[in-house]
Amino acid sequence: MTKFISKRNLQFLIKEVFETKTLTSYDYYSEHNEKMFDMVIDEALKFAVKLMYPLLDEMDKNPPELVDGEVKVHSAVKKIMKEFGQGGWIASGFSKVHGGDQLPFIIKGATSFIFAAANYSASAYPELTTGAAELITSFGSQSLIDTYVPKMINGKWQGTMALTEPQAGSSLSDIITTATRTDKGHFKIKGVKTFISAGDHDGVENVIHLMLARIDGAPPGAKGISLFVVPKLRVDSDDDLVPNDITVASIYHKLGYRGAPAAELSMGEKDDCRGWLVGIENKGLSHMFQMMNEARILVGLASCAIASAAYYAALDHTENRRQGRPLAQKDPFIDQIPIIEHTDVKRMLLFQRSIVEGSLSLILQCCMYADLMKVTKGEEKEKYGLLLDLLTPVAKAFPSEQGIVSTNIAIQCFGGYGYCEDFPVEQYMRDVRIHAIHEGTTGIQALDLLGRKIVMENGKAAFLFVDEVKKTINTALEIPGLEFFANQLANAMKMLENVTGFLITAYGKKGVDVYLSDATLFLEFYSRIVISWQWLIQGIASKKALGGSCSKKDRWFYKGKVFTMNYFFRYELSKADSLAIRLMDEDNLTLEMKPEYFKD
Amino acid sequence: MTKFISKRNLQFLIKEVFETKTLTSYDYYSEHNEKMFDMVIDEALKFAVKLMYPLLDEMDKNPPELVDGEVKVHSAVKKIMKEFGQGGWIASGFSKVHGGDQLPFIIKGATSFIFAAANYSASAYPELTTGAAELITSFGSQSLIDTYVPKMINGKWQGTMALTEPQAGSSLSDIITTATRTDKGHFKIKGVKTFISAGDHDGVENVIHLMLARIDGAPPGAKGISLFVVPKLRVDSDDDLVPNDITVASIYHKLGYRGAPAAELSMGEKDDCRGWLVGIENKGLSHMFQMMNEARILVGLASCAIASAAYYAALDHTENRRQGRPLAQKDPFIDQIPIIEHTDVKRMLLFQRSIVEGSLSLILQCCMYADLMKVTKGEEKEKYGLLLDLLTPVAKAFPSEQGIVSTNIAIQCFGGYGYCEDFPVEQYMRDVRIHAIHEGTTGIQALDLLGRKIVMENGKAAFLFVDEVKKTINTALEIPGLEFFANQLANAMKMLENVTGFLITAYGKKGVDVYLSDATLFLEFYSRIVISWQWLIQGIASKKALGGSCSKKDRWFYKGKVFTMNYFFRYELSKADSLAIRLMDEDNLTLEMKPEYFKD
Repeated sequence: MTKFISKRNLQFLIKEVFETKTLTSYDYYSEHNEKMFDMVIDEALKFAVKLMYPLLDEMDKNPPELVDGEVKVHSAVKKIMKEFGQGGWIASGFSKVHGGDQLPFIIKGATSFIFAAANYSASAYPELTTGAAELITSFGSQSLIDTYVPKMINGKWQGTMALTEPQAGSSLSDIITTATRTDKGHFKIKGVKTFISAGDHDGVENVIHLMLARIDGAPPGAKGISLFVVPKLRVDSDDDLVPNDITVASIYHKLGYRGAPAAELSMGEKDDCRGWLVGIENKGLSHMFQMMNEARILVGLASCAIASAAYYAALDHTENRRQGRPLAQKDPFIDQIPIIEHTDVKRMLLFQRSIVEGSLSLILQCCMYADLMKVTKGEEKEKYGLLLDLLTPVAKAFPSEQGIVSTNIAIQCFGGYGYCEDFPVEQYMRDVRIHAIHEGTTGIQALDLLGRKIVMENGKAAFLFVDEVKKTINTALEIPGLEFFANQLANAMKMLENVTGFLITAYGKKGVDVYLSDATLFLEFYSRIVISWQWLIQGIASKKALGGSCSKKDRWFYKGKVFTMNYFFRYELSKADSLAIRLMDEDNLTLEMKPEYFKD
Repeated sequence: MTKFISKRNLQFLIKEVFETKTLTSYDYYSEHNEKMFDMVIDEALKFAVKLMYPLLDEMDKNPPELVDGEVKVHSAVKKIMKEFGQGGWIASGFSKVHGGDQLPFIIKGATSFIFAAANYSASAYPELTTGAAELITSFGSQSLIDTYVPKMINGKWQGTMALTEPQAGSSLSDIITTATRTDKGHFKIKGVKTFISAGDHDGVENVIHLMLARIDGAPPGAKGISLFVVPKLRVDSDDDLVPNDITVASIYHKLGYRGAPAAELSMGEKDDCRGWLVGIENKGLSHMFQMMNEARILVGLASCAIASAAYYAALDHTENRRQGRPLAQKDPFIDQIPIIEHTDVKRMLLFQRSIVEGSLSLILQCCMYADLMKVTKGEEKEKYGLLLDLLTPVAKAFPSEQGIVSTNIAIQCFGGYGYCEDFPVEQYMRDVRIHAIHEGTTGIQALDLLGRKIVMENGKAAFLFVDEVKKTINTALEIPGLEFFANQLANAMKMLENVTGFLITAYGKKGVDVYLSDATLFLEFYSRIVISWQWLIQGIASKKALGGSCSKKDRWFYKGKVFTMNYFFRYELSKADSLAIRLMDEDNLTLEMKPEYFKD
């Protein structure tokens, strides 16, 4: 069987690092237990191996086509949506009231990781449906919930997020799709939406768009945007499904992520596209962002899932491909060695593993915060909420950016073979590339982190993070073999304090343009420290386990963990030093560079 | 017209930075003058714009197919080869004796840059032919030259480099293709070659392989490899072309570089494949490396050409795409601004420009060394030769690796559009990816630099490089506005001395495995310093020009140069600090990490 994720690592993170079973002491999760969590993950893995992974190449090579105004997708999509629905995967994280299992987000996250690693495009259909249905359950009227949610969570109807317009990509406040009030309880929608993932296809009976639009007369900018349910087919008075005046203008031919369509949709060409308001008028952007934050974490998760699949493909190749000999060995009669024995190849593998397992750890940490936020109260709830808010741009952007590097390195491990379609790594590199773009580009995440999250509530979240890291450092200082890493992280935190202080001072003296001019660098700088923290947490759990009795295989696993932590600190955290040099440089060259200086 | 290179920048480098016309004072180049160089570049550009660029997308979308044992390529290939031949482009750098123009390599390089930027796949056919024909002229007998070279340089016959075998990729010494001596002046060839670019196609009448093989009874390893001409069709006694028993076993379906085929060839299945020895028996690898070094520089050049094309596509998009407003401006009634006005976008553009123009400068510097080596004598000749040898792995690997990053950033400048096939950047990212793999992977270049070039002749080349940089620093120190950069480079050179000293000491104490364990990091570290040197050289020329009178457009160009130099020093050279931290770290984790620790 082809390996695309490590179940052992998932178990390590869920049980040993984050002790997920502690969640079951809370009422909301009390019907679960650790054994059930194991079963869920086993089932997800079986499902992914049997139904999703075998379609990876096929869905890539047979991308969606626009035929007579409808998007035709791979015939397996119908089956996938059906099985996801019937298996309860779409709504597993929903409350019982809304047809779900109240599964903790950390376990739901683990299953999403497995599905995305097996076949990201295939996983996007149900995942998008989950997000859209969740938005309706969170803000929609009971009537909207009753009409849409059951069919979405059983996989019969597709859900989408319809935000982007030609003139409103990163700048969502520039949305101009209009919603005109009628006296019949619905609005008339008119406008164009672009890049809508799963925006139309023949694998489902209907497509339900959660769409942002501007009600006639609403204030300009972000404060005048509302959220609507806009179905492809609407239910008429006879309970029949009839077309809702949405036209598929085109579909995009993409570098990767080819198994799922991205469509341009035109609403109301016949002035007969109806939408139903979800939540409060003009609060659409804030409603959408509740979902968007979860979506961003899922993007980070999908990136690290794809990087995981690429890593295991590369690992397998390096174990089997023989090429070259030890450097000190020049005898041509000696057999060539598996390339995994070359230090440079081990470095490339350690890099990939450090990115995959470091990112996954952070994302499951975020999921755990979300779970705890849900079941705790007062100050504790606030704390988890703030930490989650703070770390979301990191959990989205770092895996997305490093996922590109990591899949690229997977190709390098294959040499020329990696450049060919016979091996999956070239597809992984194409697939992963979307994640630094959709659900907010890396630049947008950077502005969110430095411009919003670091300074919110007078830096409360930032200080809470410092406390969390200190706790980890103090624990690590007590464990033989971890002092070096604890001290390195403490030094990095000192550096973070200096850099942040420098930037805040610049903010006060020189304004927001200077403050945010290198936000993207700050995001990378901050991320390297955050991931080091996650590696130290994993190092603590590994060292503890190595201190007890464990099997040879477990010993290998934990030793590998410690080596990978060591790798991340020495090769990747060290890069924060260079970023700090630039971040504390007073030269504002990107502000001063004029567009005409690019001309010649 | 779509811009894929900057002619202004080429002129700047050729005339103002490297003062190429000084070459014409040497006998060998005395028939040329600056005006002729200008004309050559103008012609190349016209040719590229008219014939090559328009086929970029088409050749990508219609890759070669293997039909009835022959590779069918895009019909334009025939025309391209013909025009390249008739235009004299294939042999332009050859001596008059061999049908060439004795064009300096720096000018030939500029034309290769233009062709690769317009359409890399299309340019590969003639470039490979140049390399193969050059090898025959360098080492072949007059009879071989007469038989093959004229038809190759007029574009009728394709040339290839046939090195790689299934078990001999990076480890070329493991070649097992055999050559059995006959009493008829030729050898019988038997074996399999993989990944042979332009290894077969119907755009030419014949394909001439410059192939490495092992003569029966030759010593094992690198010392027993010989070089042969092995044609697809051989000339029989009646002067007819007859099949030479080479079978195309398969062609590869690749991530990019799709306009040119990569073939697996099987020789001698009927025991009737004939090869003719080129040069000296068992010296094949060293003969091949004379060509290979030039090929490596051309790979670097092609990478930066593709990155150039991606950069100009991104620049154009950012000038025209409006999105968002200045950070301090929240009024939604204000028009959105071109995204080139956002600092983060300017940073991304400066990054690309710094990589493209910094790499191109280094490569033309190498070409200049090659030209000077050709026409000078004694110590001077030795100096240029050593510098060229030293810098070749840098000129190959840095643009290849950073070309991936640069084209990736070009996609990011486009946002979602960059992920779609409607814009060329996704193709550029796919095309450029090959360069870190073929003609020696980055890991191989790293071993070449640290394991061979730095230490050769007791570090003579490394010290010559230090002298060159010192000269540049001293010049810069005299120019107002360049002190900062001169000092930064001087500090970096001090750091280089420390790192190299540290590694050499480790070599002595701990052996070659430790010395070379982070060779790839050293290569990047060294490259960042080398490129900074090239940027300072460009900064000197720009500051000089700005000191005189120049047009507004020229002023923009030079100011842009100074900003880009500033960018490279502050954002890219600073990364050398982090690499130095790791390179001087005593922990040998990649040596100690065991393959089994990757298991779980």
